[in-house]
Amino acid sequence: MSSINGIAASNGIAIAKAYKLEVPELTFDKSKVENPEAEIERLDNALEVSKQELEIIKENAKKSLGDEHAEIFSAHLLVLSDPEMINPIKDKIKSENVNAEAALDETANMFIDMFKNMDNEYMRERAADIQDVTKRVMAHLLKVTFPDPALIDEEVVIVAEDLTPSDTAQLNKRFVKGFTTNIGGRTSHSAIMARSLEIPAVVGTKNITEAADKDTLIIVDGIDGHVIIDPSEEELAAYKKKQADFEEQKQEWAKLKDEPTKTAEGEHVELVANIGTPEDVEGVINNGGEGVGLYRTEFLYMGKSELPTEEEQYKAYKSVLDQMGDKPVVVRTLDIGGDKELSYLDLPKELNPFLGFRAIRLCLERDDIFRTQLRALLRASTSGNLKIMFPMIATLDEFRQAKAILLEEKDKLINEGTEVSDQIEIGIMVEIPSTAVIARQFAKEVDFFSIGTNDLIQYTMAADRMNERVSYLYQPYNPSIINLVNNVIEAAHAEGKWAGMCGEMAGDSIAIPILLGLGLDEFSMSATSILPARTQIKELSKQDLASFKDKLLSMNTAEEVEQFIREKTNQ
Amino acid sequence: MSSINGIAASNGIAIAKAYKLEVPELTFDKSKVENPEAEIERLDNALEVSKQELEIIKENAKKSLGDEHAEIFSAHLLVLSDPEMINPIKDKIKSENVNAEAALDETANMFIDMFKNMDNEYMRERAADIQDVTKRVMAHLLKVTFPDPALIDEEVVIVAEDLTPSDTAQLNKRFVKGFTTNIGGRTSHSAIMARSLEIPAVVGTKNITEAADKDTLIIVDGIDGHVIIDPSEEELAAYKKKQADFEEQKQEWAKLKDEPTKTAEGEHVELVANIGTPEDVEGVINNGGEGVGLYRTEFLYMGKSELPTEEEQYKAYKSVLDQMGDKPVVVRTLDIGGDKELSYLDLPKELNPFLGFRAIRLCLERDDIFRTQLRALLRASTSGNLKIMFPMIATLDEFRQAKAILLEEKDKLINEGTEVSDQIEIGIMVEIPSTAVIARQFAKEVDFFSIGTNDLIQYTMAADRMNERVSYLYQPYNPSIINLVNNVIEAAHAEGKWAGMCGEMAGDSIAIPILLGLGLDEFSMSATSILPARTQIKELSKQDLASFKDKLLSMNTAEEVEQFIREKTNQ
Repeated sequence: MSSINGIAASNGIAIAKAYKLEVPELTFDKSKVENPEAEIERLDNALEVSKQELEIIKENAKKSLGDEHAEIFSAHLLVLSDPEMINPIKDKIKSENVNAEAALDETANMFIDMFKNMDNEYMRERAADIQDVTKRVMAHLLKVTFPDPALIDEEVVIVAEDLTPSDTAQLNKRFVKGFTTNIGGRTSHSAIMARSLEIPAVVGTKNITEAADKDTLIIVDGIDGHVIIDPSEEELAAYKKKQADFEEQKQEWAKLKDEPTKTAEGEHVELVANIGTPEDVEGVINNGGEGVGLYRTEFLYMGKSELPTEEEQYKAYKSVLDQMGDKPVVVRTLDIGGDKELSYLDLPKELNPFLGFRAIRLCLERDDIFRTQLRALLRASTSGNLKIMFPMIATLDEFRQAKAILLEEKDKLINEGTEVSDQIEIGIMVEIPSTAVIARQFAKEVDFFSIGTNDLIQYTMAADRMNERVSYLYQPYNPSIINLVNNVIEAAHAEGKWAGMCGEMAGDSIAIPILLGLGLDEFSMSATSILPARTQIKELSKQDLASFKDKLLSMNTAEEVEQFIREKTNQ
Repeated sequence: MSSINGIAASNGIAIAKAYKLEVPELTFDKSKVENPEAEIERLDNALEVSKQELEIIKENAKKSLGDEHAEIFSAHLLVLSDPEMINPIKDKIKSENVNAEAALDETANMFIDMFKNMDNEYMRERAADIQDVTKRVMAHLLKVTFPDPALIDEEVVIVAEDLTPSDTAQLNKRFVKGFTTNIGGRTSHSAIMARSLEIPAVVGTKNITEAADKDTLIIVDGIDGHVIIDPSEEELAAYKKKQADFEEQKQEWAKLKDEPTKTAEGEHVELVANIGTPEDVEGVINNGGEGVGLYRTEFLYMGKSELPTEEEQYKAYKSVLDQMGDKPVVVRTLDIGGDKELSYLDLPKELNPFLGFRAIRLCLERDDIFRTQLRALLRASTSGNLKIMFPMIATLDEFRQAKAILLEEKDKLINEGTEVSDQIEIGIMVEIPSTAVIARQFAKEVDFFSIGTNDLIQYTMAADRMNERVSYLYQPYNPSIINLVNNVIEAAHAEGKWAGMCGEMAGDSIAIPILLGLGLDEFSMSATSILPARTQIKELSKQDLASFKDKLLSMNTAEEVEQFIREKTNQ
């Protein structure tokens, strides 16, 4: 029995035996063969089985996660059908009389080396695809079981170094009760997927794959970020109780699903959700979201070989708007660059990508990309309550330019006879300090603000949130952040506009009372955080919290703020 | 005749013929030799001449730039005397009967490859040293002239790809009238050196080495950032006039050398200088500086193989304080990390070094380094008017920790019987937005603020100032910057403290009227900017400028601000 701490990535308690998702050792001896035709047949069989598996995985991914997430498997399937890749393997078997394993290995490595060394991000990604696919084919040649989450048929907790998109796509919620990984953080891909699938998860444990043996009983505590391996009777009992309590709490939360969000004195605030794909809307509705506060459109552009067409985008935007009915849907235009690369744009490497050429900076220069997205949005606008916001706005000039391009495309569409809503609000993300400081000036020209705290905090504190050595400076409760947030809200209200927040902070139980007191109008968070937040807000008096405002604004440190809020709200 | 635009890096006009500082082609044929002993003698001769040259260069560097700048030549000399390096060359000549050129080239390349591939910044720098030195020795073997600025004996303008520290160390002001380079910016090493030597310079011309032939007449206009190659008679006359006007203006400025800086209504503000070494103090005094507003202590730590001792540091600090008499000297504690690496600390590479582990963040973790510097400063404090400031302070906690360490070392010294001044002011750089936002809280605990605009602007706008694609966002006149600066000054004054500025902005002729109107107490700039600034301030009414404050704070864009100031101050 032992316990490991990690990062609580998705709420809930899972108790089941460990399923270790590890790629098996794929060793073979190179040997001469007498019958090359038989080897080619073995290869063809292995290719065929691999293709069938990938087709199933791709379909599962489409169903559970949406078209965009399934793209990567199309790329893998392409590799398996590419004669430029497959014929050289067969030629090698024939000309050198070697076994299929050796021919596959040597040919694949040649291509991988070639693509890896190209000065082109897209080609480097192709190298990774070939590597992934080769492993699967090799496993079939060697008759070794390749771990396939899709084939799990008993209750397990998945234990892995990390989960790839292809792994998460295959998770069957009926059997996969939870997962835990060595690496990752709250904002890593696997963590976001866990929350979207509502599976308890603890990531960043550093060494869970070493600590937990296959089939050992494991407890994943996604509430507090612990993993217990081979628990004692007492621990098991305690966690079963915690699991039951959590389920009960979920029942409590669920009662508020169809209620509007009201403070103790009955004032309404809006609780909305962050989404990445049209498939995420189901979770928003199931969790009682009053709208979408942040639709990240990057997924449409990622894991692909070319830019998405206007039509593809139109369908995605329309699908979200259709599903949400008359509820607000705030769409953020493309925020790419920084840590999010697009292989096919082949952007230059930067010394400080977080301070670099990304989001609106890129869109204003590559306005062809920007205009295509805006046209798709404008065409979809008649299907619901669309609001458009621009990311990474640092100057009023940038906002004016972006808005001018939007209005140009709107005029063009109208002249072409396409109907466009005339109710679209146009706002900005406030995630750069300059914009938060002169929010007063911006408030005269924008329709709304949405404060993006993940970036705003990292720029205000000048600390990369991904860099462990300075992560102590990532302080959401730092009085400077509270002052900036207050400045934005006051500026909005002075001009009769609304202010929301769509960073991690909006769903945080210490931040919620602060933000409520400052008068934030809209809170956008993970869908699964909405009901807990609604439950918390019901007990909070906005008036009481507002009376602490001046005190909070003049506090010295983040610790002081946190301690004060804990005392006042009994946390 | 043609003209090229670049970045004006150092004031003034230079007119002279081009001296192209290019490493000559060093090609040779590998050949068998009959008499290896003769080859060894040729090698020894080349080594000896190279050593003599480097000794001269090192002495020149010491005299004109100070001990720290000369360190690199000690490293080069060490390479030439290292038997581990030299013996294998001689062995090769003897065992393989090859010529000295081939033996030198092959042996040096072996070491360079070996050091380059080590995962250690210090070793990689040794590889660069060997490369530099090998070229010099090879030139002597081949009897090719190695460009040696130290040997120039007629008036020239130096034309180069870039100037290395070893190049600038050799510049003789009597003959080198100006220089111009392909690469570099206003804050690059060569630009800083040019200003410190008061030689006109235009950097970042992209292709001046291609455009200008050897011995062509060249005009370097370091005022407006132009280089004119082979000027016409009219151009020559015009630039001679501009040169004379500039000299005349310098005479005008010089009249104010011993005057205090006063506004039109006679109010005093303090004009002080940024320095990097004790040798820079001469320039401060010659230019009428009223003190040192920023002593960057990094040079003590850079270009070396180990940390500077307490004694070395004590001498440097004492020298500056002694020279400045009772004038204030603000010393910034170590700001290393980010783009400034220390090879012997071997810090891990970071994804976003500007948002990483640097300055006070590093000093609080490596408090052994920090304490040594503080002890040296405290011991020197009785020699003058010392003020200590901490860089990159983001939270009040960090300031409290740094101050506590300072006071601990002070107590220790006093207990050891060492005298320490009890008049030392302790302040901070304001260069992180969080600190500018809650300056009110900081002002209660610090003795002074010094606003570091280079970093403050890049963090506030979330734009790397070294990244060309986003350099349009590096906006000193952005209303958000003016609001933050105003906030810092108001906070200081409310607590009876003073606020200075030590970024590029403090010496800018558009920024000076703005800052004067906001009530900035101290302006710290390049020594050569002091007299022009004093001349400008004499004509400015602080009261008039203060009346524009609210208007400036509520402006929308940097352009609006600039245009307004130009109109009001006839620029």
